[in-house]
Amino acid sequence: MTNSNSDRPSEFALIAQLFAPLAEAPGAFGLTDDAAVVAPPAGHELVITTDALVEGVHFLADDPPQFIAKKALRVNLSDLAAKGAEAAGYLVALSLPPGLDMEWLTAFAEGLKQDQREFNISLYGGDTTSTSGPLTIAITAFGFVPKGKMIRRKGARPDDLVFVSGTIGDAGAGLALLREPQEISHAVRDFLVHRYHEPRPRLCLGRALRGVAHAALDISDGLLADLGHIADVSGVRIEVEAHRLPLSAAFQTVWGSDTAARVKAASAGDDYEIAFTVAPRFADDAIKAARDAAAITEIGRVVAGQGVCLLDDAGREIVMDRKGYTHF
Amino acid sequence: MTNSNSDRPSEFALIAQLFAPLAEAPGAFGLTDDAAVVAPPAGHELVITTDALVEGVHFLADDPPQFIAKKALRVNLSDLAAKGAEAAGYLVALSLPPGLDMEWLTAFAEGLKQDQREFNISLYGGDTTSTSGPLTIAITAFGFVPKGKMIRRKGARPDDLVFVSGTIGDAGAGLALLREPQEISHAVRDFLVHRYHEPRPRLCLGRALRGVAHAALDISDGLLADLGHIADVSGVRIEVEAHRLPLSAAFQTVWGSDTAARVKAASAGDDYEIAFTVAPRFADDAIKAARDAAAITEIGRVVAGQGVCLLDDAGREIVMDRKGYTHF
Repeated sequence: MTNSNSDRPSEFALIAQLFAPLAEAPGAFGLTDDAAVVAPPAGHELVITTDALVEGVHFLADDPPQFIAKKALRVNLSDLAAKGAEAAGYLVALSLPPGLDMEWLTAFAEGLKQDQREFNISLYGGDTTSTSGPLTIAITAFGFVPKGKMIRRKGARPDDLVFVSGTIGDAGAGLALLREPQEISHAVRDFLVHRYHEPRPRLCLGRALRGVAHAALDISDGLLADLGHIADVSGVRIEVEAHRLPLSAAFQTVWGSDTAARVKAASAGDDYEIAFTVAPRFADDAIKAARDAAAITEIGRVVAGQGVCLLDDAGREIVMDRKGYTHF
Repeated sequence: MTNSNSDRPSEFALIAQLFAPLAEAPGAFGLTDDAAVVAPPAGHELVITTDALVEGVHFLADDPPQFIAKKALRVNLSDLAAKGAEAAGYLVALSLPPGLDMEWLTAFAEGLKQDQREFNISLYGGDTTSTSGPLTIAITAFGFVPKGKMIRRKGARPDDLVFVSGTIGDAGAGLALLREPQEISHAVRDFLVHRYHEPRPRLCLGRALRGVAHAALDISDGLLADLGHIADVSGVRIEVEAHRLPLSAAFQTVWGSDTAARVKAASAGDDYEIAFTVAPRFADDAIKAARDAAAITEIGRVVAGQGVCLLDDAGREIVMDRKGYTHF
């Protein structure tokens, strides 16, 4: 853990002490160095990804620090999952506003520690600096895949079936409830808010999809917006059937299950489920591969053309203002 | 280049277009995916490091964008250099305040592009998000070293000689001139400000020191503060002789070369030179190894004990308030 120039050197030394026990990988040298070493196992290569989370954009200032830590880590692990990689470790660059005390930071480190256990990964290193602005957490995650086996966004082909894991729209609904509380049961509220706070990277599913899925990604900006990325880079069109979208009971309690609710679910962000395409003859393989990992649902298909669309029960395109970033 | 949830999706799409040509490594997939793949050459492992730069802390708001880009990249490459690694590529997570326009971002990308040519590296990927605070640039850099050959901070031994590359204090003096202009020649001012804006990662020197240096790091927080890190983790004491510190002519023009000036030079940050220790019998090897790479100067020695100190001409310890973070 290096400390950048700052007026808070002693605090940063404390932070380094706080994070040192998290550096379990031998190549992390207990955070006593400027860098770490990583080597993929024989026949494997590293998959790397980075995502920064900013207070007020990706989480709320009064979110519990453990949840912020886990979310920052998990959105990165989710990228690894969708690529079929096995998670190995991460670097974290923290930009800290003046107000955060050691109690907050201790809880933040505890969140990271819990997730290291959960996902069998290590902290590799990091950097701490001051900022006059909002708390910013930039994480770089490292995973391993057998050489050449990373599942790409590019690779969807006409006639492929489109699947998604879990249920969608829950995190969006959870965020909406945090912003504007409603009169609903605690159980429903807790489920949805939890889905927003603690996304579950689908690492087992991703690994099971290696060599099976033609294309995959994790849903962060909204199902349709992200499927649009697959369509763009693969040079195909993706049609999603609204009535097939998997909606949780909690989601339906709050938002219903009509077309408007399904549009919301398909355009809300933060799902961190995996969407993927697979050749029809491999659909059974995908279902079998996913069995122990996560529920998956067939939601549409790939056709020639471009773009992505949501179809109603009659197979007509539902006209939408925009296909992502809609936070209800 | 993934885009996090934000109200600026179209701008972020433009940014992705701006950065896509920088993703030259095949494993970066032209930034069309959520992740990149990296594999070290046979017999090598990856060296990884991350440093975040924050506007107002590590650079000034009106610094030219090319310089900000280069500095953000180079402070990370400097870490790789000190570890004896060959630089390979980087990920960049940008948190952008509302005011930055495409002209600024184009110049920023141009700075990265120039340095990719200079150091023969590739962009691997990144992330762009909004922030209500200062511009924040978190870079993760990747390099290769032969297995087990990373030069550590830990490893300095009593009787080792201590060397530093180049000259020290220049960047600190440059920053002081940016903050409080003085009546000095353009040539002197430009040299010092340039040293602040464009640190030179000593990659050739670092590689030459593999198997020669016992311990090494790059100087970011100040020579003495950083040598203190080597002393701490190696369990030794480091004595630096003030009169041996290499000072540039420009530095001496502005700050002189008396003890007070030498204290400033030894405690100013942002040098990004390499400090290293070497057994006396390997000193000639170090000098020979460095010959084509960088000037190096012997500045002190390692002894039993702990901590770091600066000695005057009579060998007495110079009492200092603090050993780093002193920005004149």
